[in-house]
Amino acid sequence: MFLFDDLTQIEVVDIIEFLGTIAFAISGIRLASAKHFDWFGAIVIGFVTAVGGGTLRDLLLDVPIFWMQASRYIWCTLFAFIIVLFFKKYLVHLNNTIFWFDCIGLGLFVVVGYEKAMALEYPVWVCVSMATITGIVGGMIRDILINEIPIIFTQELYAVACILGGILFSILSYLHVDLVVTEIATAVFVVVIRILATKYHLKLPVLRGED
Amino acid sequence: MFLFDDLTQIEVVDIIEFLGTIAFAISGIRLASAKHFDWFGAIVIGFVTAVGGGTLRDLLLDVPIFWMQASRYIWCTLFAFIIVLFFKKYLVHLNNTIFWFDCIGLGLFVVVGYEKAMALEYPVWVCVSMATITGIVGGMIRDILINEIPIIFTQELYAVACILGGILFSILSYLHVDLVVTEIATAVFVVVIRILATKYHLKLPVLRGED
Amino acid sequence: MFLFDDLTQIEVVDIIEFLGTIAFAISGIRLASAKHFDWFGAIVIGFVTAVGGGTLRDLLLDVPIFWMQASRYIWCTLFAFIIVLFFKKYLVHLNNTIFWFDCIGLGLFVVVGYEKAMALEYPVWVCVSMATITGIVGGMIRDILINEIPIIFTQELYAVACILGGILFSILSYLHVDLVVTEIATAVFVVVIRILATKYHLKLPVLRGED
Repeated sequence: MFLFDDLTQIEVVDIIEFLGTIAFAISGIRLASAKHFDWFGAIVIGFVTAVGGGTLRDLLLDVPIFWMQASRYIWCTLFAFIIVLFFKKYLVHLNNTIFWFDCIGLGLFVVVGYEKAMALEYPVWVCVSMATITGIVGGMIRDILINEIPIIFTQELYAVACILGGILFSILSYLHVDLVVTEIATAVFVVVIRILATKYHLKLPVLRGED
Repeated sequence: MFLFDDLTQIEVVDIIEFLGTIAFAISGIRLASAKHFDWFGAIVIGFVTAVGGGTLRDLLLDVPIFWMQASRYIWCTLFAFIIVLFFKKYLVHLNNTIFWFDCIGLGLFVVVGYEKAMALEYPVWVCVSMATITGIVGGMIRDILINEIPIIFTQELYAVACILGGILFSILSYLHVDLVVTEIATAVFVVVIRILATKYHLKLPVLRGED
Repeated sequence: MFLFDDLTQIEVVDIIEFLGTIAFAISGIRLASAKHFDWFGAIVIGFVTAVGGGTLRDLLLDVPIFWMQASRYIWCTLFAFIIVLFFKKYLVHLNNTIFWFDCIGLGLFVVVGYEKAMALEYPVWVCVSMATITGIVGGMIRDILINEIPIIFTQELYAVACILGGILFSILSYLHVDLVVTEIATAVFVVVIRILATKYHLKLPVLRGED
């Protein structure tokens, strides 16, 4: 998130990132606990879910790995673990809240991913790819580690929301819209797509196999 | 493929690369469709199958990721998706053609992988490793994502063809054979091994477990 | 291991690394053979088990990949393959010896991982992360490739031994204890934890799912 560090809204963004990272980590920890992983396994899955996408993005862009620059991502994961450990019975009632955090986190991850590639002057389609990778790869690695087919490939417009968010960012940048407005519009756009898609069960068509 | 960009045969190589990338992407998209992935999932699997090996190679060599330098790999994948979408019923009759493209693509990937490591003055065994990684890792990631054991570990001399191709390249380089001749000989050698191995069902022995 | 190359105990460390790499490779090759992989597949799994953790560490730290600097890791893997190929019937009786090599290898991997991050002046928690990644990621990739849930998430204090070893290293460094003493104490500490945990079946608690 260090791209934001010199902006004035740093506190708001930090809180959003905190909530997003915790929401992503909680999703990993809950899936790990359903598979009877031990405590450490659950924490690893939570951490990988939260930082996996940004890690692949930073490796591909050949920039320093973001979570190795600040310890707060590990603290967020440990905090998420404590939440699941002590409140797992009540988490079901919080599913809606967690879903909101997850959506907001995704919107933010898309913005961060896009801006990291943009700062390196990559073309638009690379920026959109990095925004999407930041959003979806953590969940993909989580599902590989728990030995399931990545849910991303069947979930309601999850990756599509990232791609459309990235495209909106590029259009607004092209039109020289103010950066902060562009960031907020993109994040909100991603959140709205995800909420509508989940509410109305919008999915991409399935490619029927010939088998 | 940008290693070839200043050679005179750029058009021929570009067409071969185009066909190889499409063949690799088609194999991913078809396997994804057999697992009922949505459209986006199928495109991702196709893309990963086509570029996964080169991506790991470029990460290990610490050079810019090849598919982030030119958008044609994404276009190839989308083109492959359209082919599968509209012509999936007829693709079975084209299995032979696709197999040919796949073999030619593999031969080309081996040459590119070897040359990228050679350009960085790595020893022969690293060049052979990079040639093999370029050829096989895309299919390995594809199989991990669809939650199957990588077929590469049981397929007819697939990885062995890459290794032997890399060894032939190193021998011809050592003998100071002309580079273009070396490239063509290596690619043809890989194609021939794959075709013979598939025709006569040549496989490596299986290591019997003690269980 | 090149961090050790200018120390006086190079021969002892080299032998330990040799044994550790072979032990890790043997564990991969035996699991691959139980899944009826062909020879090449078994060698790949053995190699990935032995070098996977260090490879991810070097990618994250953005330093040259260790196994591309020296061919001995490939020779160790081929040697491990020959052992399994010819002596698989007798390996069961050697399970204890192999377990010892595996523990010693793990202790050494933890030390190497910690020192690589420390040499780049990363904070303590990154050094502990790199020590742990060096120790556990090879086995995780092995289990993903053979399509099993990584055993690391259920095994007796495997990752915990890495973390505790890393913490001990950081405490001894903080106290300005001699480097060689710190290295040996850390490695021995990891080995002792693993042996006690295996002997007394010590495991982390499982996070019970709400399902």
